[in-house]
Amino acid sequence: MEYLECIFCQKEYPLDLFYPFCPECQEPLLFSYPFKKKTFFFRKEGLEKYLDFLPLRKINHNFSLGEGNTPLLRLNRLKEKLNLSSVLAKNETINPTHSFKDRGSAIAIQKAVSMGMERIGTVSTGNMAVSTAAYGARAGLKTYVLLKEDISQEKLLSTAIYDPVLVTVQGDYGHLFRQSYLLGKRFKIYFMNSVDPFRIEGYKVAGFEMYLQLKRQAPQYIFVPMSSGGHLIGLMRAFLDLKQAGFIQEYPTFVGIQPKGCSPIAQAYAQRKSKFKRIAKTDTVAQAVTNPDPPGGNVALKMIRQNKGMIIDVSDKEILAAQKMLAEDEGLFCQPASATTLAALLKLSGKLKFESQDKVVLIITGSGLKAVRTLKSLRLNIHQASLSNLEKTMNSLLA
Amino acid sequence: MEYLECIFCQKEYPLDLFYPFCPECQEPLLFSYPFKKKTFFFRKEGLEKYLDFLPLRKINHNFSLGEGNTPLLRLNRLKEKLNLSSVLAKNETINPTHSFKDRGSAIAIQKAVSMGMERIGTVSTGNMAVSTAAYGARAGLKTYVLLKEDISQEKLLSTAIYDPVLVTVQGDYGHLFRQSYLLGKRFKIYFMNSVDPFRIEGYKVAGFEMYLQLKRQAPQYIFVPMSSGGHLIGLMRAFLDLKQAGFIQEYPTFVGIQPKGCSPIAQAYAQRKSKFKRIAKTDTVAQAVTNPDPPGGNVALKMIRQNKGMIIDVSDKEILAAQKMLAEDEGLFCQPASATTLAALLKLSGKLKFESQDKVVLIITGSGLKAVRTLKSLRLNIHQASLSNLEKTMNSLLA
Repeated sequence: MEYLECIFCQKEYPLDLFYPFCPECQEPLLFSYPFKKKTFFFRKEGLEKYLDFLPLRKINHNFSLGEGNTPLLRLNRLKEKLNLSSVLAKNETINPTHSFKDRGSAIAIQKAVSMGMERIGTVSTGNMAVSTAAYGARAGLKTYVLLKEDISQEKLLSTAIYDPVLVTVQGDYGHLFRQSYLLGKRFKIYFMNSVDPFRIEGYKVAGFEMYLQLKRQAPQYIFVPMSSGGHLIGLMRAFLDLKQAGFIQEYPTFVGIQPKGCSPIAQAYAQRKSKFKRIAKTDTVAQAVTNPDPPGGNVALKMIRQNKGMIIDVSDKEILAAQKMLAEDEGLFCQPASATTLAALLKLSGKLKFESQDKVVLIITGSGLKAVRTLKSLRLNIHQASLSNLEKTMNSLLA
Repeated sequence: MEYLECIFCQKEYPLDLFYPFCPECQEPLLFSYPFKKKTFFFRKEGLEKYLDFLPLRKINHNFSLGEGNTPLLRLNRLKEKLNLSSVLAKNETINPTHSFKDRGSAIAIQKAVSMGMERIGTVSTGNMAVSTAAYGARAGLKTYVLLKEDISQEKLLSTAIYDPVLVTVQGDYGHLFRQSYLLGKRFKIYFMNSVDPFRIEGYKVAGFEMYLQLKRQAPQYIFVPMSSGGHLIGLMRAFLDLKQAGFIQEYPTFVGIQPKGCSPIAQAYAQRKSKFKRIAKTDTVAQAVTNPDPPGGNVALKMIRQNKGMIIDVSDKEILAAQKMLAEDEGLFCQPASATTLAALLKLSGKLKFESQDKVVLIITGSGLKAVRTLKSLRLNIHQASLSNLEKTMNSLLA
């Protein structure tokens, strides 16, 4: 028997894939591991290397799309600009559907198949829809994707190509999120939504990779964009696992970031509240982290307070400037949501006291290709020429 | 001193980055290695593992974006449909700018810096522009990108974000390609275009990875989309290297594929000609492989004839059906150009005699996100509902 735990009520409940929330306080439940000395299996490939730390007995490679193993890049130009000793980017855009969501889908799909589920689903505004539809197709499961009706044509089409059952739904997104579990229970659809406990366990793997890429050290700071809160919760759990296993001594400082135009968790953190308040109206360019009612918000707040960390917000102007800087200075083109990490680092760089050996990691969550439209607002330099006056044009551009 | 060779005139010439073409026959020159027993350095990371087979003395990791190490996925559902023993996809969309071009840019940029170049450039219709601009930004080199004036807004913006000098040029693309070398010589800009000899050496690395991923075996068939011809030339050279080093006995059969709407090389192959003829008018959905005057076409034809292989074409209808099949059956969403590989395999599967142990590899060259617009022509299933009638809608979809 497997158990999920509520970190608020500190109780355990038998696993129910159809409703992984606390029956008492309605907060999301997290996977509870039986006590065991854990280790990495260095001779194994892919997810099997981390099997001790995952909620699975075995990995079926047929359901993988080759997720993970993403680069941890040194950002030397930014390091010098900011006068820091080491700034790194964990580039999660180099995943099968070009976002970190694949980490979570990869584990949730294993669980779905191992538990005999024939139908999976998700409620999403973008990245998670694509990722879930891709893994559903890979595993041959019937996949139900519920989307907000105002989703962009690009996101709709790039989800539909995998042939899920796709329904755009008119109405409040928070209500849709909750209703999905009722539908799941009725129709036996495992809704692997943003704070699904297995999805969250999948996010841990990026943390383990960072630890190994840094030659078995934890970075001192990890900057993570926050929407539902699930990604931050997963990454924080990875380093809790590493600490518990005795692999690291010092827990990293986590910096969760939200865009000012939708920052319920950052507001609660600033006001020293333990619960966030739902936002009535959102307005930000960082569409992938626009969740006015984040289901993992309270769990994230509690984990940040129990360990080391903070949650801050950044403006759209700061986000777009950071997005441009990552591309121009380092060759990394990410979606605005991911650029919140650099925006936050720039904002904090005068305030935080970095030590000479500190390593700062920015989690780059999704590809810029997923939000090309937002670039239209930037003033980008584009010149015109004809073949006959090209040489003259080039000459003037070189001057 | 380093040399480039002409495989037609069988002569060597000292390396000239500004014009790597044969002064006698104008065909592209390829890098000529001094004779040496070559091996892999398994304890090294990234490109250093393959250094013996690359035209570089050392690798500067600061210029890397973490390219390569892409998955080789078993396509089990397609394997069964086609009654083959093993169909695999080398997923090159999992690269920093989501296409195989990064392999070539990664090596060309190393060469540029090691030779003291301060300016690089490229002539491209899409993927290569993005890749070159990204690596130029990463290395801090002034980067000149010349694009056709009718390029899509998405491609223009996702190149401009890296802040290269971007010029859209009115006029014939073949002329622009040739003129770029004149401009390069005059303004000291190293134009790392599609058939640049260092770019081509970079494409070899995917071949070495496949060999290692298959536990030191070559696949029996490799399907590669063809535009300029550079990618196929590079992959063929990888397996020539492996044969010469004594690592493999049997050379794989290469299948180069062009879309029917732009198939100058496939036409020459079918007509048993040694030189292709420029196409006057192109018309295909596979925009990333639309080159009516492919600079590497004749070299590719010669290499295919000298070794094992063929070059065929597929229709837009076959391409779009294959693109949909890869997404629906395997969770892989690629650009139409990449789907030419599966379209060709489907077309040949009745004709080629596959053996029971044969491994067939499809090279998936670029992400579907780069060409979302083409999906509009597909009939994709999208349903609508409101929160209040969602349960009813779901019920009808499950029936």
